[in-house]
Amino acid sequence: MDSDLSDSFNMNKLLLGPGPSNVPKRVLTALSNNCISHLDPDFFSILDEISENLKSLFKTENETTFAISGTGSAGMEAAFANLIDEGDKVLVFSCGLFGERMAEVAERYGANVVIKSKEWGEVFEYNEIINSIKEYDDLKIVSIVHAETSTGAHQPISDIGNFLKNRDIIFLVDSVTSFTGTELNIDDWGIDVCYSGTQKCLNVPPGLSPITFSEKALRKIRNRKQKVKSWYLDLNLLKNYLGEKRVYHHTAPVNMLYGLNEGLKICLEEGLEKRILRHKDTSEYFNRMLHETGLKLFVKDNVFSLPMLKSIQLDKKISDGIRIDILKKHKIEIGGGLGHTKGLIWRVGFMGCNSNKESVDVFFETLKNYV
Amino acid sequence: MDSDLSDSFNMNKLLLGPGPSNVPKRVLTALSNNCISHLDPDFFSILDEISENLKSLFKTENETTFAISGTGSAGMEAAFANLIDEGDKVLVFSCGLFGERMAEVAERYGANVVIKSKEWGEVFEYNEIINSIKEYDDLKIVSIVHAETSTGAHQPISDIGNFLKNRDIIFLVDSVTSFTGTELNIDDWGIDVCYSGTQKCLNVPPGLSPITFSEKALRKIRNRKQKVKSWYLDLNLLKNYLGEKRVYHHTAPVNMLYGLNEGLKICLEEGLEKRILRHKDTSEYFNRMLHETGLKLFVKDNVFSLPMLKSIQLDKKISDGIRIDILKKHKIEIGGGLGHTKGLIWRVGFMGCNSNKESVDVFFETLKNYV
Repeated sequence: MDSDLSDSFNMNKLLLGPGPSNVPKRVLTALSNNCISHLDPDFFSILDEISENLKSLFKTENETTFAISGTGSAGMEAAFANLIDEGDKVLVFSCGLFGERMAEVAERYGANVVIKSKEWGEVFEYNEIINSIKEYDDLKIVSIVHAETSTGAHQPISDIGNFLKNRDIIFLVDSVTSFTGTELNIDDWGIDVCYSGTQKCLNVPPGLSPITFSEKALRKIRNRKQKVKSWYLDLNLLKNYLGEKRVYHHTAPVNMLYGLNEGLKICLEEGLEKRILRHKDTSEYFNRMLHETGLKLFVKDNVFSLPMLKSIQLDKKISDGIRIDILKKHKIEIGGGLGHTKGLIWRVGFMGCNSNKESVDVFFETLKNYV
Repeated sequence: MDSDLSDSFNMNKLLLGPGPSNVPKRVLTALSNNCISHLDPDFFSILDEISENLKSLFKTENETTFAISGTGSAGMEAAFANLIDEGDKVLVFSCGLFGERMAEVAERYGANVVIKSKEWGEVFEYNEIINSIKEYDDLKIVSIVHAETSTGAHQPISDIGNFLKNRDIIFLVDSVTSFTGTELNIDDWGIDVCYSGTQKCLNVPPGLSPITFSEKALRKIRNRKQKVKSWYLDLNLLKNYLGEKRVYHHTAPVNMLYGLNEGLKICLEEGLEKRILRHKDTSEYFNRMLHETGLKLFVKDNVFSLPMLKSIQLDKKISDGIRIDILKKHKIEIGGGLGHTKGLIWRVGFMGCNSNKESVDVFFETLKNYV
């Protein structure tokens, strides 16, 4: 294995939860570079490089592609805060905690939210989505989670944006967990706004949220009737700092951005397609190993199990409590269930440098001590 | 000099701007520690330690003392977003950009803002403040900037809170630049909410905002009529993660918090009083040196010049443009003016480990090359 891709084994703990994932030495070293000013031309070069590399990985030509100075949830908030004008009808598809969170955030920012829910662990079919969209003639935003971190379900989204393209509707996607671990094509799939997190497949510590806005989304934001409620996340102000003017807005988190820059370089050095394939291979290997143990995936249909986050149903052989023991004795982090799945499922992440056969083997070897 | 206090000279650039300041090696090393989960009990110990150390440095018993997952401006936003109920009358005292920003943020969150302004570089006298407060019988919040980073003015605030104590009014203070560099007593001064930044006197990279809430502030927040507009900054949700329940809210910026923890330890090892005295001594030395050059401070009355941030008026001898040259040739960052002071003033910071005679000497020695 490439050293950047096996760094997880040099760490004090192996992070096989739903994120943060292990952070390679190169990224940790970048984080500890000397801090310089957020207004230093040398730092602007780093911001430019981050933007270019994010564009490559998001597969977009969107000029407005950068990292929000907060975690993935701040990215979600930035998306809704900027897009929603008071009273806008927003259709949210939800099959888990992060779908529910989208509805909650949209509502707080004054949207008229319509939520279409399915059971946790399910996904929406294309026809269900399109039929739901057709029910309303005044939709402004359609939002959906690509990788539902609470359930491990992989929502197909490739055809929705193109249906919305010639309508006056913004297509908003949460890719916090999926970004660089499975296929995601912002431009080809007609996605207008997409935010992610750094602590999943990018292997950068939590604290930043990569985000991208299409021209269609920017037009809606330019034509807002009210100011964006959040000053901190107001794209109209942020663009003055991020764009050519470089006008001070807030002080960018300099060292975290060093780390992100390095994480993006590692991705691009491996190559996005190769990285995605690696996640797929690890996932298939995990599925085979899981099958041997007699345990089952939590997602309703195995086809929709995320490659970087495997959720498994606990049965009588495994109690949720042993996660604490595994963390203490074996230094391996495994995620528990959220909300009503607490105690019923585990969420096991193989993200970025943690996505390899060795990590899967370590997981099942460790599990043998308990079942 | 103690090595932690002279680290600035080992850096590639000497950051004598308004922040970020130089980051000591110990903090940089902490930043590069292996990432662990935000739900790991080992990480909860770090959060507890940060909270205790922030309480010591803020001089408060407030249990709700922690770091917001965003920069100082996110701290400002967190304060207003949580405190303001639609229509609340908020009195903002402003003598600079950050006073103006307070008014702007409060207004976006639905406040009925009354702004009392003075010229940039001035401060308010106690009687002016009290008389302004007495003008209104329905004030909910009084807010003021302790250290106005745009002008270098040091606003006296020690007696305002005690005047408000038995009134139904929250006293909100911005200490982004002052925290640990000059006297600030949250409890004794009757301050209800106070936020700061990490990249000033704490010498931690930008990205977090230490904040503290009094019981009086928490009561106002508990009795809110509407939900907090910002989900990301909603204290009612954050407290479930920060408190004993440890319920997941957002993924805390783990490595940045390692850095903050180390920065706080360095402060406490030196001792707050000693650190404050060091900033005062450096400031007085700077004032004497400046006097010799014939240049003048920008603040109207020298008594109100901040110890950690000296603003100087440019004259014919110095053009603003040489800052770029100083940064390139001498690797020294100096801050320019903001807004209408752009091109007219410089802002020179001596913050945390950068506050010492040697840094002042380097500044004036460098300046000699140009005047």
